[in-house]
Amino acid sequence: MKVENSLHSENINQKLLGIQYAVRGRVVQRAQQIEREIQKGVPKPFERVIRANIGDCHALGQQPITFIRQVLGLAACPQLMSSPNIPEDVKERVAEILSDCTKGSVGAYSPSNGLQIVRSRVAQYIEGRDGVPASSDDIYLGSGASDVIKAVLTMFVQEMNGKPPAIMLSVPQYPLFSGTFSELGLRQANYYLDEENGWALQVAELERCWREASVDSHVRAIVVINPGNPTGQVLTRENIEQVIKFAHEHNLFILADEVYQENIVCKPFHSFKKVMHEMGPPYCGMELASFSACSKGWAAECGMRSGYVELVRLHPRVQQAFNTARAVMQCPTVLGQCILDCVMKPPLPGEPSYDLFVKEVNHIHRVLTERTKTAYETFNSIPGFFCNPIDGAMFAYPRIEIPAKAQQHAVDNGMTPDEFYCLRLLEETGVCVVPGTGFGQLPGTFHFRTTILHPRQEFDHMMASIRRFHVNFIKRYS
Amino acid sequence: MKVENSLHSENINQKLLGIQYAVRGRVVQRAQQIEREIQKGVPKPFERVIRANIGDCHALGQQPITFIRQVLGLAACPQLMSSPNIPEDVKERVAEILSDCTKGSVGAYSPSNGLQIVRSRVAQYIEGRDGVPASSDDIYLGSGASDVIKAVLTMFVQEMNGKPPAIMLSVPQYPLFSGTFSELGLRQANYYLDEENGWALQVAELERCWREASVDSHVRAIVVINPGNPTGQVLTRENIEQVIKFAHEHNLFILADEVYQENIVCKPFHSFKKVMHEMGPPYCGMELASFSACSKGWAAECGMRSGYVELVRLHPRVQQAFNTARAVMQCPTVLGQCILDCVMKPPLPGEPSYDLFVKEVNHIHRVLTERTKTAYETFNSIPGFFCNPIDGAMFAYPRIEIPAKAQQHAVDNGMTPDEFYCLRLLEETGVCVVPGTGFGQLPGTFHFRTTILHPRQEFDHMMASIRRFHVNFIKRYS
Repeated sequence: MKVENSLHSENINQKLLGIQYAVRGRVVQRAQQIEREIQKGVPKPFERVIRANIGDCHALGQQPITFIRQVLGLAACPQLMSSPNIPEDVKERVAEILSDCTKGSVGAYSPSNGLQIVRSRVAQYIEGRDGVPASSDDIYLGSGASDVIKAVLTMFVQEMNGKPPAIMLSVPQYPLFSGTFSELGLRQANYYLDEENGWALQVAELERCWREASVDSHVRAIVVINPGNPTGQVLTRENIEQVIKFAHEHNLFILADEVYQENIVCKPFHSFKKVMHEMGPPYCGMELASFSACSKGWAAECGMRSGYVELVRLHPRVQQAFNTARAVMQCPTVLGQCILDCVMKPPLPGEPSYDLFVKEVNHIHRVLTERTKTAYETFNSIPGFFCNPIDGAMFAYPRIEIPAKAQQHAVDNGMTPDEFYCLRLLEETGVCVVPGTGFGQLPGTFHFRTTILHPRQEFDHMMASIRRFHVNFIKRYS
Repeated sequence: MKVENSLHSENINQKLLGIQYAVRGRVVQRAQQIEREIQKGVPKPFERVIRANIGDCHALGQQPITFIRQVLGLAACPQLMSSPNIPEDVKERVAEILSDCTKGSVGAYSPSNGLQIVRSRVAQYIEGRDGVPASSDDIYLGSGASDVIKAVLTMFVQEMNGKPPAIMLSVPQYPLFSGTFSELGLRQANYYLDEENGWALQVAELERCWREASVDSHVRAIVVINPGNPTGQVLTRENIEQVIKFAHEHNLFILADEVYQENIVCKPFHSFKKVMHEMGPPYCGMELASFSACSKGWAAECGMRSGYVELVRLHPRVQQAFNTARAVMQCPTVLGQCILDCVMKPPLPGEPSYDLFVKEVNHIHRVLTERTKTAYETFNSIPGFFCNPIDGAMFAYPRIEIPAKAQQHAVDNGMTPDEFYCLRLLEETGVCVVPGTGFGQLPGTFHFRTTILHPRQEFDHMMASIRRFHVNFIKRYS
């Protein structure tokens, strides 16, 4: 006997129905199906699916950093301290962290903002990076950057003088933002990155965005993703200054998603905090939220869910409200905090773990450098592709030409052209990438996002598959 | 030079300003201050603060379960597999879990709802508990139960026919609920538990609550905490049936917070799911959300942040929306998922880890049994105290008499009487408990919540301190 549901699509929180998350969306779900079909023996024109939809380094074969995992293993199970081949600095690090856990157990709650020792390390890391003071009281650890990004965005959900709140967001953007905006009911005020100029932020475009959004919304903040995701550009110092001036002029709060700050190939990274400081008054007095995470950088520990936000110069009442909201959720995972400790203070020269650590990190950096270069060159060598230089992060976001006939065919089948393209790519080659629609793109242009950190052979195979597919696709629909 | 804040108490999300979380609130903050004062040598009438404010077993000295920590240590650092003295079943378990992690790394993202292997184990555990089928597709792992409770509550945030949504919540309750209601803008429709009848749920009171709330709200769901927190009662089967009938009559969704289901002294635990099933149509067709967590039970791994919800018979569109909302946050911590795996399928008789495991769990259960009994007897032996029998969980919630003069003094100083009482208790004895105001209580009655799982000597000292303090307090203000 069927009972009527008390909760259904008419009376569920309607904001939830608006959430899109392409990184785990339609194309990816089809990829999962195909994987099951292959297992069942359904014949396919390829041996296996190549996942290039999500920035998940370990899933692409990157090896975890030995120092991190040894610290983690021993912190979880101190009985293993006596295992052979554990370097002394690992044991010391574990003892140090556990001394800040109540009764020496990672199974006890930590303070809601995180262990004092870890927050101090984060503050020291930031001071070392910027040469600007940082306070552990301004650091909030989270279950990944996603967790703290959502918590910070929640603060802006407030109608003002009858106008709903809006936040400026780049296009393209990482859909954690658009998805969370949907859930929270924040309006998304889109500013377009300038693809023709290496995905730079143009002040005129920021002004246009602010002006148009301000007609019927109260624009509260601006999100900047640097290094860019999915775009991979690293902002120049000058460009960051322009954004800060713009934000100051319009009294906007800056949210700097800087999670890829350690994934940079050759350009220097300038943190918003440092640039604000160096610009002096009044800019050095502005508020800021800067995010980072262990799922990126050389650690790439995605599954551990560990990240942080530095909340700079918050109003005391605002910080107090934030503290209480965080306390309700108790604390982020303590083992995740242990990883952050290692990332913020890796082994130093002369310490037993140093040589292996440097070897591992250098290898990761070499792979990134090599892949960004190859992806850039390969994509630009395919007729109908355009790809900006990739300065950092771990993705390529090439622009692709889709013939009018293919566009029409997509629309006739209830798809966007780029979604149709990516689904065909998947069906014909097994390569699973994410359509540009999921990140945003200038109307009339089409892109996809692909990760680029696959093992060399797989990467080459993927690139060759995309090239072959594209040439055929263009032929078929021209 | 001071710049004006763009985010301040007038334009921050006003809902955040309404959040209260007494478990880490004013009394606890004062306790932290006192700890710092003691470190600095400030003389106090006690040697140290006794924390009894939070259900944090490891912080109270409970030892982690060896099997869990060995699995965790090896899953984090598979290199340690070859360490001496690791039982074979631990190694097998680790291999099994890692075989479900992409490329065998806990550092890769899991599916958003959790690893398939762990969700299957949860489903098997539930089937074993209830004798009712369970599907791994209905299980969602979270960063603690708090995480999934908040996610489920979010679904009900929807105005209907101009009426704001309300959810029925017991008083007393665990302030994760009231805090999250505040943040989400859900109205709290309070039903009072019947203290004179062992904290039972009375249908007449549920009806009153629903009727009064329905005047200006749309009542969407009812939260039941069983075993109770802070109250420690275990609901009878009959009482659960009454709640289910009541919910059915008013088309309410049931949220069953069953996190303390393994912390029960002698009564049988009846899950809402099982009772619904056994009641047959139409009740066996109702929706349900049932929550549990690794931070409770014998594992008590609070710092790991691992829990789950079983979402039973959700409308497919609702489940789809829930899936997408969860996907945005990527996944819960994979190491937390490993713990849940151990909790859902502990070592079996004959396996190498079994004997030690049973010994450890029995000890934990003995302590709980003994402390619940002693707390109950001690509190009822203090003049002016009343305490119901404690069936489970890990708290006592005695009712205390506060003389009229003391009440007046509290009000004159901007405090509630129970807050004043708890602050005095803290200042004079170092015992840190949470005022009943933080959980709710019938107007005119006063309570506090204390954890009861301290080591024997500390527990006895705490009980003696409370008794001595109370007698003096009554004398002073009579």
